[in-house]
Amino acid sequence: MRHFTCVQDIGDIRSALEKAKYVKENPYADQHLGKNKTLMLIFFNSSLRTRLSTQKAGMNLGMNVIVLDINQGAWKLETERGVVMDGDKPEHILEAIPVMGSYCDIIGVRSFAQFENKEYDYNEVILNQFIQYSGKPVFSMEAATRHPLQSFADLITIEEYKKKERPKVVLTWAPHPRALPQAVPNSFAEWMNATDYEFVITHPEGYELDAQFTGKATVEYDQKKAFKDADFIYAKNWAAYQDPNYGKILNSDRSWTVDTQKMALTNNAYFMHCLPVRRNMIVTDEVIESPQSIVIPEAANRVVSAQTVLKEILLELQ
Amino acid sequence: MRHFTCVQDIGDIRSALEKAKYVKENPYADQHLGKNKTLMLIFFNSSLRTRLSTQKAGMNLGMNVIVLDINQGAWKLETERGVVMDGDKPEHILEAIPVMGSYCDIIGVRSFAQFENKEYDYNEVILNQFIQYSGKPVFSMEAATRHPLQSFADLITIEEYKKKERPKVVLTWAPHPRALPQAVPNSFAEWMNATDYEFVITHPEGYELDAQFTGKATVEYDQKKAFKDADFIYAKNWAAYQDPNYGKILNSDRSWTVDTQKMALTNNAYFMHCLPVRRNMIVTDEVIESPQSIVIPEAANRVVSAQTVLKEILLELQ
Amino acid sequence: MRHFTCVQDIGDIRSALEKAKYVKENPYADQHLGKNKTLMLIFFNSSLRTRLSTQKAGMNLGMNVIVLDINQGAWKLETERGVVMDGDKPEHILEAIPVMGSYCDIIGVRSFAQFENKEYDYNEVILNQFIQYSGKPVFSMEAATRHPLQSFADLITIEEYKKKERPKVVLTWAPHPRALPQAVPNSFAEWMNATDYEFVITHPEGYELDAQFTGKATVEYDQKKAFKDADFIYAKNWAAYQDPNYGKILNSDRSWTVDTQKMALTNNAYFMHCLPVRRNMIVTDEVIESPQSIVIPEAANRVVSAQTVLKEILLELQ
Repeated sequence: MRHFTCVQDIGDIRSALEKAKYVKENPYADQHLGKNKTLMLIFFNSSLRTRLSTQKAGMNLGMNVIVLDINQGAWKLETERGVVMDGDKPEHILEAIPVMGSYCDIIGVRSFAQFENKEYDYNEVILNQFIQYSGKPVFSMEAATRHPLQSFADLITIEEYKKKERPKVVLTWAPHPRALPQAVPNSFAEWMNATDYEFVITHPEGYELDAQFTGKATVEYDQKKAFKDADFIYAKNWAAYQDPNYGKILNSDRSWTVDTQKMALTNNAYFMHCLPVRRNMIVTDEVIESPQSIVIPEAANRVVSAQTVLKEILLELQ
Repeated sequence: MRHFTCVQDIGDIRSALEKAKYVKENPYADQHLGKNKTLMLIFFNSSLRTRLSTQKAGMNLGMNVIVLDINQGAWKLETERGVVMDGDKPEHILEAIPVMGSYCDIIGVRSFAQFENKEYDYNEVILNQFIQYSGKPVFSMEAATRHPLQSFADLITIEEYKKKERPKVVLTWAPHPRALPQAVPNSFAEWMNATDYEFVITHPEGYELDAQFTGKATVEYDQKKAFKDADFIYAKNWAAYQDPNYGKILNSDRSWTVDTQKMALTNNAYFMHCLPVRRNMIVTDEVIESPQSIVIPEAANRVVSAQTVLKEILLELQ
Repeated sequence: MRHFTCVQDIGDIRSALEKAKYVKENPYADQHLGKNKTLMLIFFNSSLRTRLSTQKAGMNLGMNVIVLDINQGAWKLETERGVVMDGDKPEHILEAIPVMGSYCDIIGVRSFAQFENKEYDYNEVILNQFIQYSGKPVFSMEAATRHPLQSFADLITIEEYKKKERPKVVLTWAPHPRALPQAVPNSFAEWMNATDYEFVITHPEGYELDAQFTGKATVEYDQKKAFKDADFIYAKNWAAYQDPNYGKILNSDRSWTVDTQKMALTNNAYFMHCLPVRRNMIVTDEVIESPQSIVIPEAANRVVSAQTVLKEILLELQ
C-alpha cells in the first residue's frame, strides 16, 4: 500500500480482515518493520481517539512517532502562484509540505471539512496536497469526506460480533446540536458496500449523502422500518450534503434518537458509534449502557485498524 | 501495587525507601518491565516538574509515553445520567475514560482542587472516575487533596540528608500572592506521619489542615518555637481549609517568610520546598541559595519516586 | 563538544564536514551513544523545521526526546535577586533551569531576539542562563544572534552542490513585511568566514550587520554587482542592526527580490534560503521552483547538522 485514504486502498477486504486479526493477536510481532522509521501525525483539527490510537499503533510497530498540532488559524499556507506574500501567510505549501516529508517516512493527516466551500471540501484539497508534494506515503486520520481508519475499525468490530454470515447493518442518522461533516457516514457506507452485508441507511429527508459513497445501499426514510431485524445499528449525525443546504442542520428531531423501543424492533442488534457521542441526542443512556452496546471495543479496534494500515505501508517501504 | 494515590498504596515505608534506593542506583535496570507498555499522562492542569520527571521515569523503564494536555475549559465531560447532551459537553465520562484506558497500560492523572466546591474537591471526583472507569492502574500526578509523588520524593530526600535516626521535620506555612490547594501539605503530613520522625506543623491560626492528613502531628502556631532544633524545614503556602473560609487567603504576612534569622533557631536545618517557589515571600534569597538548601536534589528525586511507583505497578501487571 | 552555540564550537570545519558526511550516510549507526540519554528541546518561540529535524536527529541517535513548549508570555521567570515575588513571575531562574537540567542529559534552547533591548538580545541572556545554571550541555536551536544548526546545514549543502573548490557565495538581503532578527545572516556570515570561500554580503544601506559576524566579508551595496559570477545566492531578510534603528524595517523595496533576471547575472548559481520564505518578496516563484533552487535538500540537511552536533556532545558525555 502506498497511500491510504479510502476503502479501495486496503485491497481485498477479506484479506485485510485477516491481516487485522493477525495484528490484533500479535501486536508487537512486527517491530523490525518500524525500526528507525518515523511516523509524523499532523493534526489540523483536534483529536483524542485518533491521536492516541494511531500513536499507539506506530509505537507497537517500533516506529518513532512525532505529533504535530497545527492550529487551524495559525498555519495559513499560501497555495497560489504569483502572489506577493506580504500578508498573513508566512509559507507556501510548495515549500512546507516537502520539508515535512523530508523529516519522516510516513505522514498521517487530519483535516476536516470546513463547510465553507463544498467543492474545496469534496476535492480533499489539503489531503491531496500532502499526497502530491510530501514525497512520502500519506494516510488519512479523517479528511473532509472520509474517515477510513474509523470505518476499518467498525468493520473489524462487526466481524468480531456478527452471528450470521451476512448481517443486516443499519446506518441511522440521529440529532446533534452542531453541524457535523459527512466523513464518518460517507466512509462507513463505502466500507459496508465493499462487503456482502445487507446495508440500509435511514435518515430524514434532505439528509441524502453523496451517491459516490452510498452506492448500492438501500435508503429508507422510515427509521422504524429500517431497524426491523437489524443485527447492527450504527448511529451518527451529519449535516446536510445536498445543495443548497450543504453543511446545514435541517432537523433536530429527537424522535430520531436511538432508544430501547427502537432497538426492540431489531434482531437484538449491537449498538455502534464512532464516539464522542451525545447521550440522549444520538442514543439514550439505556441503549449505550446495555450489554449490546459495543462502542468501547469498537474504539479499541482503532489501534488495530491503524496498525494494520501502517504495517502494510511499512511493508511497501522495505 | 494497583493504584497509587496516597501513602497507604506504597505499603511498608522502609521497604519502599529500599526500592527507591535501588531504582536511583540502577535507573535502566528494569526496561524489560516496561517494554511494549504504554504510559499515558493526562494533565488537566499545567505542569513542568511532574510532566518531565514522570516522562523520564517512564522512559527509564522502557515504556512508551503519551502525554495528553486537556485544557480545563476545553474538555467538559458530562457525568450525570439522563441529561440531554445538547450543550457544551460533547462527551460523557462513561465513554471517554474507558476509551483512554483501552489505549494504554497505566494512566497518570493531574487534576487540582478548583476551590469551587469543597466536597467535590475532597471527594477526588476526577481521579476516582479514572480509577472506576478506565480499567487500568491509575496514579496521581497531584490530585485535589494529595501530591503523593512529591511527598515520596520529599521522604527519599530527607532519608538521604538526615544525620540522626529520628530527625525533627517542620512543615511551615508561608505567604503567597495566590490561593493554593492543600494537596502538597496534606500529602506531606500524611507521609511524615507514616515515619517515626518528630513532625511539627506551624501556620497562622485559621490555616488548620484536614485532620485526616495531619493526624498525630504537633501543631504549633508560633513559627519560631516550631523551628527550634528542627533538622528539616519544609515550607509551603496553602489557602484555608476550614469552613467558611475554604480556598481563601486569610493572611499574607511576610513575617512568616523563612529567613536566615529563623533558620538560625534550627539545628542547622536543611531547607526544602516542592517548587516553584516565590522568593522573598516563601523564603529569602539567602536561605534558598545557602548550602543547606536542598530544593534541587529534592526536585531531582521526583524521577526516583515516579519510577519506583511505576515499577511497582508494572510488576503487578506482569 | 560541551556546548554548541557558534561556529567555534564545532572545531575544525573540514573535520566537522567529514563527520556530517558520515552521519548522513549512516544515520542509525550511533544509537549506542544515545541509549538511555534524554534530549530536552525547549522552545520559547514557535518552530516547525527545527523542532522536527532536531527531534528526528535525537531519535536517529537512539535518544529519548522530550519537547517542551514554553509560551513566551506564560513562563515569566524572575532573574533578579532580592525581588519580593508577589507578581506575575511564579519562579526564579535559579530554581527553574537546574531542575530542567536534572531531568535530561542534553538541552536544546530556542529563544529569539525580542528587539526590545539590543544589549539584552546580543548578550544572549536566556541561552547563557541555560549554559550557566542547567549543569548540562546546551545547544542553540536559534538564539537571539545566531542560528548555528541552520548555518551548519547550509554549509553541508554548499559542499554537496559546489562545482569548484572555492565557490563565490553571496548573502543577499531581500524585503519582508515583518521585522526579523539577524540570527540567520549573522550566523551564516560567521560560518562562511570559517571557510575559504569567496563571500560577499549585499544589502541596502542601513542594513549593516554586526562586524563581529561579518568579519572579512566583502560588503557590496549594489545587488547586481554582488550577484556577478556567484555560485550560490543565499537570500534572507533581516531588520536593521545599527543604532538608532535596531529592530526596525528601513526598506521594503521589492527591487531587492531575487528574480530570474538577477540570477542570470550569476554563474548559474544555486538558490538557497533557510525557510519559511515569502514568495515574490524574497524570491520569485520562477527562481524558487527552478532546478537551481536547493531549498528542500537544504532543509533536509537540518537533520544532518543537528545529528552531527548531538553526536559530538554525546561522545563527550561517554
